[in-house]
Amino acid sequence: MSAGPSTTARPARAAAAGLLTELQRTLTEYFAERSAAAADMGPVVAEATGALEQFVLRGGKRTRPAFAWTGWLGAGGDPDGPDAPAVLRACAALELVQACALVHDDIIDSSRTRRGFPTVHVEFEQRHRDAAWSGDAAHYGAAFAILVGDLALAWADDMVAAAGLDPAAAARFAPVWAAMRTEVLGGQLLDIHGEAGGDESVEAALRINRYKTAAYTIERPLHLGAALADADPELIAAYRTFGTDIGIAFQLRDDLLGVFGDPAVTGKPSGDDLREGKRTVLIAEALRRADTTDPAAAARLRAALGTDLSESEVTELRAILTGLGAVDAVEARITALTESGLAALAGSTTTPRAAAALREMAAAATARVA
Amino acid sequence: MSAGPSTTARPARAAAAGLLTELQRTLTEYFAERSAAAADMGPVVAEATGALEQFVLRGGKRTRPAFAWTGWLGAGGDPDGPDAPAVLRACAALELVQACALVHDDIIDSSRTRRGFPTVHVEFEQRHRDAAWSGDAAHYGAAFAILVGDLALAWADDMVAAAGLDPAAAARFAPVWAAMRTEVLGGQLLDIHGEAGGDESVEAALRINRYKTAAYTIERPLHLGAALADADPELIAAYRTFGTDIGIAFQLRDDLLGVFGDPAVTGKPSGDDLREGKRTVLIAEALRRADTTDPAAAARLRAALGTDLSESEVTELRAILTGLGAVDAVEARITALTESGLAALAGSTTTPRAAAALREMAAAATARVA
Repeated sequence: MSAGPSTTARPARAAAAGLLTELQRTLTEYFAERSAAAADMGPVVAEATGALEQFVLRGGKRTRPAFAWTGWLGAGGDPDGPDAPAVLRACAALELVQACALVHDDIIDSSRTRRGFPTVHVEFEQRHRDAAWSGDAAHYGAAFAILVGDLALAWADDMVAAAGLDPAAAARFAPVWAAMRTEVLGGQLLDIHGEAGGDESVEAALRINRYKTAAYTIERPLHLGAALADADPELIAAYRTFGTDIGIAFQLRDDLLGVFGDPAVTGKPSGDDLREGKRTVLIAEALRRADTTDPAAAARLRAALGTDLSESEVTELRAILTGLGAVDAVEARITALTESGLAALAGSTTTPRAAAALREMAAAATARVA
Repeated sequence: MSAGPSTTARPARAAAAGLLTELQRTLTEYFAERSAAAADMGPVVAEATGALEQFVLRGGKRTRPAFAWTGWLGAGGDPDGPDAPAVLRACAALELVQACALVHDDIIDSSRTRRGFPTVHVEFEQRHRDAAWSGDAAHYGAAFAILVGDLALAWADDMVAAAGLDPAAAARFAPVWAAMRTEVLGGQLLDIHGEAGGDESVEAALRINRYKTAAYTIERPLHLGAALADADPELIAAYRTFGTDIGIAFQLRDDLLGVFGDPAVTGKPSGDDLREGKRTVLIAEALRRADTTDPAAAARLRAALGTDLSESEVTELRAILTGLGAVDAVEARITALTESGLAALAGSTTTPRAAAALREMAAAATARVA
């Protein structure tokens, strides 16, 4: 990483900590405002909004609001100016979009835990079971979680509408917000379709990364911040290149950690992505190489991925991936994307302070851990 | 019905037909605008937006946009004035909220058909099966439909944001739109929770009707129209009373038709609500009465509801419901609600032409069919 230690790193970190506190306060206030009216409909509605509130407030790294806010600052937004509170609320609303995406994704992926707690559909499946209600408990849990996710998506838009943006800023924000929500849903559609259809290409895996992760996590949040600040088209273009490149690099790093990461650092059992049979760029790259150079390795990978692998089998597969040069190829992609992303940022008109913060965020997203 | 034949009925009908055409055009244009960008993400995303477009354009009675538009006209909106196109687009967006509600409801209710076609989750389950993809076809169909519904909900908000409302109108619209979406989701939560928990009370059934049907179908659409026209609080209060009362009466009529309706008119097999075991006010009223006056009838109802009833058993249950006085009680509720709703309308400042249209819509929603 070219960012290195910087004289602006300390204030950037302090500002980041302050931002997290402000986001938490803003989200807490919003839930207090909405939950009272919802609770009037009945205890079960209060349970649903309570579940959503817990989900949002007790976890999450606030990555998307942080990029949006930093994008706004970097385009000239004044954190002490009169627009700041409304901008902060609009940025915080990204956490509600994310709550919808995760709650629905957990149904789609049949995930049992999220952020160390039962997923929403599992929690309400369990309540059904504990109460010995009639009907299928798993179906009830999924139905409840579909509605909780819908509530999150609706409230995300409501939070933007009620943020108090001036009309011109709101008009600039809306088309970017529209594109972002469609892109993340498109990315999820590409993901489930690719998995079902068994698309093994590097291109398919990269396309999913682009929409499901890069556009949604970095590119569009930065774009939203820039739009709020009425940034010029050149800065927007630079942000979008930075966001796309760093976003994809972030996902590639995540894919490597899912196979090679230290469980103590990642919080996930080592090699879990192999057991789940996740179709990542790493795996696509390995299969592509094996198909031309080592058919036995290709057959071994296809037979093993998505099965209940032992620790020694995980170690064996790691050696195959490394031996095929797939790991080096992904590392090279990460390096190239990180460099091109940082170059776009360096050539932009963003403020030095925001540039320093974005370099630090890029380093955290793409650098090797453990 | 007190509306009766009216000299304004003919132009009202012509205006209604013109409105349907305008709504269809507006929705068609909106899909054309969004689908192109979505298709760039890949064919599967185009399939998803295509499925949503077909769902919205090929069916539906446009009930909610019609109430919103009529509410706006009745509060002084000028259909030939400069605000009309933006108002029409904002009203049309209600059909996208409805698409989300129906697509997700069909997953929740495990419904196989909707508007004479396979439901979205069934259609994509079938495509999975036809392609012999890997994984569970039913799970894939549900996952796909969750994302299509999310897309509908996101696009509903986007359509409002892009409607071109002037900022003051948009600001009046937003809190009503927020309340409406939360209410329909709250109503669905009450519904699935009541069904699982076996709540048999009249009050529970009425509360579901209020939020899931009345608020969402009539009360809030009228309120949205009034808000766009900057109506005075008295007219808004009158609309809301009218909408709540007529909306609940509409659901009660629907419940009666689900048991006693002519299949040739309702399009559903006769007695289907009894086979599904739907917990309606009609059933709640019958059980309440049977529990105090006829324990044998109560036992027979509880044993039979939700089972695969023969035609003769449906006939027997109808006789029990009628004999208990439940049908008369529901008819009396419909009459009382229709009268109080129409009285609120009559005492309001809405324009005579809109009042005539609303009386006609109320009659269509609540009157006996067959």
